[in-house]
Amino acid sequence: MAKVLIVMGSDSDLPVMAKTADTLTRFGVSYDMRIISAHREPDEFFDCAQNAERNGYKVIIAGAGMAAHLPGMFAALFPLPVIGIPMHTKSLGGRDSLYSILQMPPGIPTATVAIDGGVNAALLAVKMLAISDETLLNKLKDFKEEQRTDVQKKDERLREKGYQDY
Amino acid sequence: MAKVLIVMGSDSDLPVMAKTADTLTRFGVSYDMRIISAHREPDEFFDCAQNAERNGYKVIIAGAGMAAHLPGMFAALFPLPVIGIPMHTKSLGGRDSLYSILQMPPGIPTATVAIDGGVNAALLAVKMLAISDETLLNKLKDFKEEQRTDVQKKDERLREKGYQDY
Amino acid sequence: MAKVLIVMGSDSDLPVMAKTADTLTRFGVSYDMRIISAHREPDEFFDCAQNAERNGYKVIIAGAGMAAHLPGMFAALFPLPVIGIPMHTKSLGGRDSLYSILQMPPGIPTATVAIDGGVNAALLAVKMLAISDETLLNKLKDFKEEQRTDVQKKDERLREKGYQDY
Amino acid sequence: MAKVLIVMGSDSDLPVMAKTADTLTRFGVSYDMRIISAHREPDEFFDCAQNAERNGYKVIIAGAGMAAHLPGMFAALFPLPVIGIPMHTKSLGGRDSLYSILQMPPGIPTATVAIDGGVNAALLAVKMLAISDETLLNKLKDFKEEQRTDVQKKDERLREKGYQDY
Amino acid sequence: MAKVLIVMGSDSDLPVMAKTADTLTRFGVSYDMRIISAHREPDEFFDCAQNAERNGYKVIIAGAGMAAHLPGMFAALFPLPVIGIPMHTKSLGGRDSLYSILQMPPGIPTATVAIDGGVNAALLAVKMLAISDETLLNKLKDFKEEQRTDVQKKDERLREKGYQDY
Amino acid sequence: MAKVLIVMGSDSDLPVMAKTADTLTRFGVSYDMRIISAHREPDEFFDCAQNAERNGYKVIIAGAGMAAHLPGMFAALFPLPVIGIPMHTKSLGGRDSLYSILQMPPGIPTATVAIDGGVNAALLAVKMLAISDETLLNKLKDFKEEQRTDVQKKDERLREKGYQDY
Amino acid sequence: MAKVLIVMGSDSDLPVMAKTADTLTRFGVSYDMRIISAHREPDEFFDCAQNAERNGYKVIIAGAGMAAHLPGMFAALFPLPVIGIPMHTKSLGGRDSLYSILQMPPGIPTATVAIDGGVNAALLAVKMLAISDETLLNKLKDFKEEQRTDVQKKDERLREKGYQDY
Amino acid sequence: MAKVLIVMGSDSDLPVMAKTADTLTRFGVSYDMRIISAHREPDEFFDCAQNAERNGYKVIIAGAGMAAHLPGMFAALFPLPVIGIPMHTKSLGGRDSLYSILQMPPGIPTATVAIDGGVNAALLAVKMLAISDETLLNKLKDFKEEQRTDVQKKDERLREKGYQDY
Repeated sequence: MAKVLIVMGSDSDLPVMAKTADTLTRFGVSYDMRIISAHREPDEFFDCAQNAERNGYKVIIAGAGMAAHLPGMFAALFPLPVIGIPMHTKSLGGRDSLYSILQMPPGIPTATVAIDGGVNAALLAVKMLAISDETLLNKLKDFKEEQRTDVQKKDERLREKGYQDY
Repeated sequence: MAKVLIVMGSDSDLPVMAKTADTLTRFGVSYDMRIISAHREPDEFFDCAQNAERNGYKVIIAGAGMAAHLPGMFAALFPLPVIGIPMHTKSLGGRDSLYSILQMPPGIPTATVAIDGGVNAALLAVKMLAISDETLLNKLKDFKEEQRTDVQKKDERLREKGYQDY
Repeated sequence: MAKVLIVMGSDSDLPVMAKTADTLTRFGVSYDMRIISAHREPDEFFDCAQNAERNGYKVIIAGAGMAAHLPGMFAALFPLPVIGIPMHTKSLGGRDSLYSILQMPPGIPTATVAIDGGVNAALLAVKMLAISDETLLNKLKDFKEEQRTDVQKKDERLREKGYQDY
Repeated sequence: MAKVLIVMGSDSDLPVMAKTADTLTRFGVSYDMRIISAHREPDEFFDCAQNAERNGYKVIIAGAGMAAHLPGMFAALFPLPVIGIPMHTKSLGGRDSLYSILQMPPGIPTATVAIDGGVNAALLAVKMLAISDETLLNKLKDFKEEQRTDVQKKDERLREKGYQDY
Repeated sequence: MAKVLIVMGSDSDLPVMAKTADTLTRFGVSYDMRIISAHREPDEFFDCAQNAERNGYKVIIAGAGMAAHLPGMFAALFPLPVIGIPMHTKSLGGRDSLYSILQMPPGIPTATVAIDGGVNAALLAVKMLAISDETLLNKLKDFKEEQRTDVQKKDERLREKGYQDY
Repeated sequence: MAKVLIVMGSDSDLPVMAKTADTLTRFGVSYDMRIISAHREPDEFFDCAQNAERNGYKVIIAGAGMAAHLPGMFAALFPLPVIGIPMHTKSLGGRDSLYSILQMPPGIPTATVAIDGGVNAALLAVKMLAISDETLLNKLKDFKEEQRTDVQKKDERLREKGYQDY
Repeated sequence: MAKVLIVMGSDSDLPVMAKTADTLTRFGVSYDMRIISAHREPDEFFDCAQNAERNGYKVIIAGAGMAAHLPGMFAALFPLPVIGIPMHTKSLGGRDSLYSILQMPPGIPTATVAIDGGVNAALLAVKMLAISDETLLNKLKDFKEEQRTDVQKKDERLREKGYQDY
Repeated sequence: MAKVLIVMGSDSDLPVMAKTADTLTRFGVSYDMRIISAHREPDEFFDCAQNAERNGYKVIIAGAGMAAHLPGMFAALFPLPVIGIPMHTKSLGGRDSLYSILQMPPGIPTATVAIDGGVNAALLAVKMLAISDETLLNKLKDFKEEQRTDVQKKDERLREKGYQDY
């Protein structure tokens, strides 16, 4: 049984959600990935959301754009954490997606990440699971070291080559 | 059987929704008024939305604030028109409510009115019903005349008294 | 006599308004389509708006950009519903169009849809007409089924192929 | 015959428009002041706008809030300058009024002043009239001197008393 | 002696200001066109602004982007009308230019047109000059007729050909 | 050892953070509450953040306003989840706090809740802990039932009394 | 000869600018404080700005609201640093002031601080002067210690009393 | 020992920061340039910030995007001036970077320049150093003359060639 459900409202969200999947894979966290629309197939959505806990999911990561109701509606039905990814939009730059996901009323929280923040949504899920999973916690610490090394290498390159030849 | 369902996500929306009810009453349009939360009682919400047509409603007017999913979720389930009223909010001035209601993806329309636009939501519902109801259409024409007269009286008063004594 | 009048302020709005026309055609709803500018030909506009009801139109769908007065001015003269489509704009992303259409004062409602929301404007008109037209109502229910099936197919494809090969 | 027509869409705009009238009075420029709504009495509005030039007005100053169509619609009918004053609004701070007045399409200009800028609208009208009226031009130069003196007095007071006792 | 001074803060504003010049030419209004920076050459700017009236200019049209001080600083020194054109900007869409030009304090008005509104700035200047120039006034009326005809032709074309073949 | 660290950058954030504490208390989740400023006492902040995991904290809830660096800086040092609460601000309505907390670069996630969302931050922490704590999970389900009942009572009251006497 | 010139465009800015003066006093940095308007008395402004270096000022701190040209125009004439304080405004929350001060074109920098940031403007001036003044540098280090202690005391109080009795 | 530390959070900021380096070079001001991430390598960041004064830096110029904590965190640790450059971002146009850098709480100032303002950040640093360095001050005056001449040449070219052939 997969631990995380990655869900998106439309297949146009795939490029962002693919980063979520890639990052979970990197940490060895199992997931299922689905396209479900709370608007276009409310019955399927309800069915999925109401059974998500029973199906073993510990965290749901939902990406959606514009009037992005998917994360908040999952949060209304699923008792464990829901992470929302607001998609960038042409006219409002993703503020519509962001406000629709973030501004949940008291009682029904979503955990919102940056606009198009596919990687961070996955990392946040891993951190949540790591609360009770020491192996994951250690992987997170290793990941932090890799990030550190990565920046250090860039810094060294810049100091060596100068910015003109970087 | 009432023609219009007025629904709000929280009783803090009542001052705005009361104007909706008052305006429908003025036009003699029957309505039911309810507090239903798609987030806090998703089952009740689903039940209500899925049976709304069967219960005789022709138009649903839904007011909601912040991450305002109520109008859009009704639009996902109810086949006839849904009118959304975005509530003013302290931090974002109602932009959060507005975007959550307005920016629906193709396929699932809501008819959005101005922020806190309780009166106009009702008028819009009356106009929709007037498409097939000549009595209502005539009432709308009378209402237009009253609006005209009202402005004319103010204009006359201003021209008579001047702005200092208006 | 056509049921819906599709009107735009400029021929640069055609790509969006064409979707409106296509969608009405799909539902078998008759329409006329015109370019009329409240600013550049106010007499023609007034003439058109004042005679629209007499000419048999039940709904007007008006698209306009920037200081978008067309939908609101139609709403001032036409007693039945006016649906406004705010056009995307380069500098303000369509907020100028949106606010000019949405923020109507009490008494003169417009039904506003998403920025560039040509499809939803048509669907909203169909829903309004369906209040008194059972055939249209059934078509709307069929349309909903098609939307559902469409998402389900995408979901199946994703689950089968995985996101890398989608 | 008055030179300037001051017009507002609603009597709630009076506090701002009163400053316009006061400023014109100070410069000895004659004006008429009216409440006219393009939305609530389109016929009266059209009549007023189409006859404004014949009635001797050289400049129209129009104040309006929310979806503020009044200045732009006057500009569509009146061949001489129209100055628009965007009213402050509770939810959007006057951005709705501003965009509805400012973002006119090429061909139909309005001269927009600051949100709630009742004084500046009058001054702008005086400047326009001063193009062909030397007496007004001299009054404008005197006014500039008064402004200068006014700031200088404040500066002196601050330097004398210090900010604690200002 | 030219009647209008067209001035811009940077040669990157030329594409917009060229439309201003073209439009003035169309109405036979003489102009001078200059690049002057209040920031980079404050002395030249002051000299130009203080002598502008003496040099016969009746209206100044100033285009500027970002922290756009040019129109407002001209308005501080030139007693006749100053029209400001806010330039579109990459990061803020021209809101920076707009607010810097529009939000002038009471006493120092600018007449602001739409973002990148080069044509309307010229038309506004023509309208100001037309207050005391009947020939210009008649040209403005002719221009209005041309605009009307232009839209009517597009409307006819659309009705004849349909939107697919427009 | 407490499970959650509630931390705020300034004691002006207390009214919001008190709701966080109250909500955790309701669920029986232990917490420590501190005022720590990453800006005013960077050494103390670093010390606290680097030892937070060792000190037994499973989740950190950090509230901050304006250029709100506290949540993101905790996320840079603490390997488990950090929840950020953006504080409402007078000039920008909390957008400054929100963007500073939400828009974290890939690699360093924060879980952001609504502006002033003190209750939801606590609920989100409870949900995270509930992934591995069945008692908490059951409390969350009970809480959901209470929310449902609460809305139902309001709905009943409204249907009984009508909105005038609510 | 004073080291810093504190200048504001209007006496309504005094409450913010008083904090600037208080903070400079605390560090023993001498200042002059003036009300000067680039718009209402451009000659005085020019005179002041052009002589500021000669008069011994090392830094200018300019506060202004709305279309806030004062800091940028000082920066055009004064060769040493200009610090700008954007004033909060009713309609746009200070975004107008902010953009007018911040978005200076390449070549003419201003150092912008937070909206209404009177204290930080002074501290920034002190830091600039401290580059070549060891006494000031030491005072800044002491100030940092005081800030640290201040937060620590609040933290202790909270931990002792709890948030209910804080 | 270099006088200025140029630091960026990511190598994607290099195109903007290169302008900073080029401008410092032009004025003969020595600098070091580094990539340091407060988020990805907090220990390195702390080390760098705490030793910056000891290492002889007089000014730090920090560029960062999105939730841009780098300038503010440097300002928390480095007692001399920190200049922040907010990077343009795709979704929010750089408002996220701007607010994260600008809206620092009282006590911890940053000197913020325009979005992507790499040149002005360098000029501001030069101005700060010029407070106690007459050679630099003279170079700044020369630079001002060059700017003036540059605009004058463009103005002459425009007046000679006309805008069509510019």
